[in-house]
Amino acid sequence: MEPSFRKIEYSDYHKRYFDLLSQLTVAPVCNQDDFDSFVYDLTDNHIIFVLENDQNRIIASGTVLIEQKLIRNMGKVAHIEDIVVDKESNGKGIGKKLINKLTEYAKEQGCYKVILDCRDNVVPFYEKCGFVKKESEMALYF
Amino acid sequence: MEPSFRKIEYSDYHKRYFDLLSQLTVAPVCNQDDFDSFVYDLTDNHIIFVLENDQNRIIASGTVLIEQKLIRNMGKVAHIEDIVVDKESNGKGIGKKLINKLTEYAKEQGCYKVILDCRDNVVPFYEKCGFVKKESEMALYF
Repeated sequence: MEPSFRKIEYSDYHKRYFDLLSQLTVAPVCNQDDFDSFVYDLTDNHIIFVLENDQNRIIASGTVLIEQKLIRNMGKVAHIEDIVVDKESNGKGIGKKLINKLTEYAKEQGCYKVILDCRDNVVPFYEKCGFVKKESEMALYF
Repeated sequence: MEPSFRKIEYSDYHKRYFDLLSQLTVAPVCNQDDFDSFVYDLTDNHIIFVLENDQNRIIASGTVLIEQKLIRNMGKVAHIEDIVVDKESNGKGIGKKLINKLTEYAKEQGCYKVILDCRDNVVPFYEKCGFVKKESEMALYF
């Protein structure tokens, strides 16, 4: 059966979502009001798709941030962020299906490209998803 | 005199702004209603700073897109986009001052980091601005 991704919901707060995010990076549980406020503020241009398993646990998540530009005929660019699949669900192709879901969404929204930053060890994964290596990511931490 | 960057304004449409953007990439002039609508929709989380010279021409521009995350204690990340300095104004340090302006803005807004993607030939420039090389940018074009 194909995984059925859906938009994040308020009730995901109770579905071990922060356990999943903690597999990505430091992600302490926020309080529920802040979570609700975060979900409320999401829009068509800032959206999170998740996958829930049959034990009511979120096992995959990915964000799309859509940026309206002036260049390229007022083109729109989709930034993919914070891709994570639960380590116990690795090897089932969920990651690729999640990326396909996010890129399809970006296409429906009229974006001319999708970009993301990733570590070198997952470059081959994104190449299998149709991406090509472009520029270098630079970062400045405060 | 230090350059005085300011937020983009409706009247910048008439200040050769698209000539400047065309030095960055394909940037045909949009109609003024679309430009006004674009500027109107900008927020504290999607902001463009420009520099106007004394001939009423925009000679530098840079965008900051701020993303609210759940990870890292609901951290915020600033994405720097579409940095361009007019080629006739190169060598005056305007680029570095523009990046400083954008990173200072990101700091004021409470971001924990600023990221951007750039070509290898400008990596040394961003290193001088305090950035370090991180991951690889991947792109998928529709």
